Amino acid sequence: MKRITIYDVAKEADVSLATVSRVINDSNVVREDTRNRVQEAIEKLGYKPNAIAQGLALSKTTTISIVMSEKLLAYNTKILNGLMDVAKIYNYNIMFHTTSKGISKMQDVIESIIKSRVDGVILFNDNFTEDEMEVLHEYQIPMVVVGARFEGKKDENVGNVYVDFERLAYDLVRDLIEQGVDDITLMEDRLNLSMMKQLKKGIEKAFEDAGKNFEGYISYGDGYKSSYAFFKDYFKDHKPAKFNMAFRDSQAIAVMNAAAEAGFHSPEDLQIVSVLDSKYLNMVRPRISSYNIPEYDMGAISMRLLTKMLVSDRDQDENRNIEISYTPIPRDTTKEELFY
Amino acid sequence: MKRITIYDVAKEADVSLATVSRVINDSNVVREDTRNRVQEAIEKLGYKPNAIAQGLALSKTTTISIVMSEKLLAYNTKILNGLMDVAKIYNYNIMFHTTSKGISKMQDVIESIIKSRVDGVILFNDNFTEDEMEVLHEYQIPMVVVGARFEGKKDENVGNVYVDFERLAYDLVRDLIEQGVDDITLMEDRLNLSMMKQLKKGIEKAFEDAGKNFEGYISYGDGYKSSYAFFKDYFKDHKPAKFNMAFRDSQAIAVMNAAAEAGFHSPEDLQIVSVLDSKYLNMVRPRISSYNIPEYDMGAISMRLLTKMLVSDRDQDENRNIEISYTPIPRDTTKEELFY
Repeated sequence: MKRITIYDVAKEADVSLATVSRVINDSNVVREDTRNRVQEAIEKLGYKPNAIAQGLALSKTTTISIVMSEKLLAYNTKILNGLMDVAKIYNYNIMFHTTSKGISKMQDVIESIIKSRVDGVILFNDNFTEDEMEVLHEYQIPMVVVGARFEGKKDENVGNVYVDFERLAYDLVRDLIEQGVDDITLMEDRLNLSMMKQLKKGIEKAFEDAGKNFEGYISYGDGYKSSYAFFKDYFKDHKPAKFNMAFRDSQAIAVMNAAAEAGFHSPEDLQIVSVLDSKYLNMVRPRISSYNIPEYDMGAISMRLLTKMLVSDRDQDENRNIEISYTPIPRDTTKEELFY
Repeated sequence: MKRITIYDVAKEADVSLATVSRVINDSNVVREDTRNRVQEAIEKLGYKPNAIAQGLALSKTTTISIVMSEKLLAYNTKILNGLMDVAKIYNYNIMFHTTSKGISKMQDVIESIIKSRVDGVILFNDNFTEDEMEVLHEYQIPMVVVGARFEGKKDENVGNVYVDFERLAYDLVRDLIEQGVDDITLMEDRLNLSMMKQLKKGIEKAFEDAGKNFEGYISYGDGYKSSYAFFKDYFKDHKPAKFNMAFRDSQAIAVMNAAAEAGFHSPEDLQIVSVLDSKYLNMVRPRISSYNIPEYDMGAISMRLLTKMLVSDRDQDENRNIEISYTPIPRDTTKEELFY
C-alpha cells in the first residue's frame, strides 16, 4: 500500500530509472517497445510524475500540502500557526491551497496536489466530500484530517486529530436536562456542517437517554448579519430558548444582541454557549461562555502525526486517531451551576 | 538586473546547460578544469541552484512564496484569500511561510526562499527589517510588499500595494481640529509598527499645520487583555481623551469597555475609531466607527501585480506602487459631524 514512485515503475517495466525518466520527459532515445512497456507500467500502477521535478525524486525536499476552505481560514489561524511551526522544525516546504466556491474547487486542488506529488497532506475537515477523499486515497498520499472526527473510509494513510464534539454536546445537554432545562436551541453553522452533525447527534442522544425528543435545531443564513436579522425578527413574537448553543462567536453574539434589544437578558432569560472560543467572547457584554480547545496544539500535533506517518512503517500499530481534550470556560452567559 | 539562472552560469563559464547541471548534481563525468570554471561562474554570479529541481529550470511551474508573521495571520485572512484566488487563476503554486519569534525567523525564511528558487515573493509589511529586505534584493527575486507603504530601498523588482495611513490620519485629525477637538490619543499597536509610524506622522503633521504639538501617543502591552487592564487602571484617575484612535478592533473595544465601566460613554465622553474594520466592531454595543479598506482586493491586486512583474520587461515604466482607497464607516462611537 505504499505510494507509487518512479522506482516502482522501473521495477514493473523492468527498465532503469533513467529510462522511465526519459519516457516521462518525452525523449526520443527510447525504443518504441520499451516506451510502451513503461507507459503500461505507469498506467497500471497509477503513477503520476511530479510536474515540478519530473524524474528527480531522488533528492527532493519534503513538501506538505495544507488544504482549507477560504471561509474557514479566518477561524483557523491558530491551527495554521501550530501546523507551520512544526513544519518549520522539520524543514518542510508548505504548499498552501484554499478552496472556494467558483474559483478554486476541491477537484482542482486535488489535481494540483497529485501532480506536484507532495509527500503528505493536511486537510481541514468540512472541505471535501467522501468522493473527493477517495481520489486522494487512490494515490496513497498520507494525510491528516484536522478538526472534527473524520467519519469517512480510513486506512493507514489517514490520520485524524479531532475534538469529540458529539461527546461535548452530549455531556452538556445531559447536565442541562438534569438541571431541568430542556428548552434548548442548536444554531446551525453552515461553514462547519460536519461539526454541526456531530453536535446534533450528541444532543439527540442526551434527549433520547432522558426519554425526550430534540426539536431545537434551527437553520438560517450564515454569518452575523443574517443570524442577527433572523433573531431580531424571531423575538418579535417568540421568547428565546432557555439555552442557546452556537458553534462560533458571531452566532452567539447575534442571539445575545437580538435578545437584549427585545428585552431578554442573559443568563436569566437565556443561557448562551459558543462551542469555539474567541477573544471577542470576552470583549462583549455580558461575556459569553465557551470551551477552551487548544487549537495551536491541534495544528502542532497534526503536523507531528503526519511526520511520523511519512517515516514509519506502514503497517505499524501506531495511534493515528488523536482526540484533543477541551475544558469549559464559564463566563457571564451561563448559570453558576452549569459548569461546576 | 535580471535574476540569475542556470543559463547565465552556462554562458559565463562557456559550457553547455547539461554541463552546469552535471556540476550542480556532483556528477563525475565533468573534467576538473571545467568543473572549476563552472563553480567560479556560480560564485561570481551568486547563482543558487533550486533545491527541489536542480537543473530542471526549463519546465518548472511558477511558484510564489507568501511570507507573513504568525501574529498578523489572524488579521490578514481576507488579504490572503485575495492572494490565493488570483494565484489559482494563474495556476501558481503557493509556498507558505510564517515568521515567529523563536521558531521561524525571517532569516531562515529568506534562506528557504532563495534555496527553493521561487519565482516571486509576497511580503506582508512589518515582518522584516531593511537588512532582511536587502538579502532578497541581492537575489533579485521580484516581490510585492502589501499593507503599509514600503519605505525601504526600491527598484524595479519591488512592488507595493498599500493604504496611505499617513494621509488617513492627517485628514481625520485635520477635521477634528477644525471641529475644536485636539484632545486626541493614538494607541500603539505593537504588531503593526510600520503602520503606527505612518499614522503618527499624519497626526503630527495635522497638529503642526494647526500650530500645535501632538503628545497623545500611548504605548503599553499588545492585545486586548493588556489594553483593557491599562485603561481600567488609567480611568481610575484620568478622564478619557475626547478622541481615541486605535489600529485594530481589540484596542478600540478595550478602551470602550474600560471607559464604560468607569462611567464614560461613547460618543459623548469619548469618540472612538478603529482604523481597520472587522465584523466585531458591528457586534459590540455601541458599534465602533471604522474605515472600509478593501482587503480582499488588496490581496488580489498584489498577486496580479506580481504576475505582471514576472512576465514583463524589467525596465518598463509600469506603475508598481498601487494605492488602495478607503472610506469611513461611521457607526455609534463618532459624532455625526465627523464623517460628513
